[in-house]
Amino acid sequence: MTHVANEHSERDVPAMTVQRIPLYLRCLLEAQGERLTVLNSKQLGDRAGTNAAQVRKDLSHLGELGTRGIGYDVDDLVVHLMRRLGITESRSAALVGFGRLGSAFLGYQGFAARGVRIVAVFDTDPDKVGTEIEGLIVTSIDDIADAVEREGIELAILTVPAASAQKACDALVASGIKAILNFAPCTLTVPDDVSVRQADVAADLQILSFHLNRASSEGYSR
Amino acid sequence: MTHVANEHSERDVPAMTVQRIPLYLRCLLEAQGERLTVLNSKQLGDRAGTNAAQVRKDLSHLGELGTRGIGYDVDDLVVHLMRRLGITESRSAALVGFGRLGSAFLGYQGFAARGVRIVAVFDTDPDKVGTEIEGLIVTSIDDIADAVEREGIELAILTVPAASAQKACDALVASGIKAILNFAPCTLTVPDDVSVRQADVAADLQILSFHLNRASSEGYSR
Repeated sequence: MTHVANEHSERDVPAMTVQRIPLYLRCLLEAQGERLTVLNSKQLGDRAGTNAAQVRKDLSHLGELGTRGIGYDVDDLVVHLMRRLGITESRSAALVGFGRLGSAFLGYQGFAARGVRIVAVFDTDPDKVGTEIEGLIVTSIDDIADAVEREGIELAILTVPAASAQKACDALVASGIKAILNFAPCTLTVPDDVSVRQADVAADLQILSFHLNRASSEGYSR
Repeated sequence: MTHVANEHSERDVPAMTVQRIPLYLRCLLEAQGERLTVLNSKQLGDRAGTNAAQVRKDLSHLGELGTRGIGYDVDDLVVHLMRRLGITESRSAALVGFGRLGSAFLGYQGFAARGVRIVAVFDTDPDKVGTEIEGLIVTSIDDIADAVEREGIELAILTVPAASAQKACDALVASGIKAILNFAPCTLTVPDDVSVRQADVAADLQILSFHLNRASSEGYSR
């Protein structure tokens, strides 16, 4: 039930495992809310929509966690995963692109609870700059370097049109940002030390369409 | 340069390959826009932010495409990928949850160009039902089965709070929907023949935070 945080090199953690850490954390926080103190790998797998073997394999990449035959101490594992995700203290993020999608994210209360606070919002449109929204003032993207330094911004959420995305990305990189979540449907060119995650909603819909197509063309389900 | 659409069982296509098909399609459409007729795997890999070997491996799962030493016929590959994705004719989608995020998606013109049209919008809030938005009338979720039948809806985009998501999901499944893109941060329980894709923006930010954390704790970049 103890976890020995036998730190591997994080470089060893497979990308698919990294993708599931936030999922496990969310499920563990739900279990905490239900006052559960221990979960075994089957229980965590059921909550996460995966299975016991996958849970054990994923968590094995993160150290020697859990106790055989008993399970994982929920509180310990929450702390461990939050530490691995680097969200024991919240990260500051910039929102770049104050359009409809950006506005939706600014109004969403769920980020702060999950370790990321949007502390600044940028746009290029002079008509938008100066607008107050959710306690923030929309700032010109020309002033991004100052804001990044002043606010300790580490992440950026990019919600600009595809045609403007590389230019906005370049400004972010020049200001020292090392992690970008890109909603524009385009491939960004960044230096090796910058992480980009692509969030392309239309692509997600196309992937679902692939599954529909497969189910119908093969006459079987799923 | 011809493509022989040697249909494998689509069941053989690895999940990570499926995830990249929309990316390749987007890059090919960009190349079409630049009036390019042939791309080799390195060129397609560069555009997609991956590499030649990955492109060849991914596309090999989709049939015998391309000609060795020459490359892929752009137009042929576009058609082939669209067919595999099941978007040669556009798919009809329902938006469930007319909040800020849902509104942002309704206003987004990019889905139709990528094969998915939002043809109906649903909410449970009586104050929202009846509202006209982007040419659609917000409908009570109680009427979803009729709409799914009438409009030929196949996909749903779920943008409701986590606490309401399973109930909305159950209504979608009962109406015959087999593919759901879920923006609520919760695991949905669905029958085996229903595909769910989780779009959790906070989780994406946490994954980026993991990479930041790794870079800083190991004193190396990326």
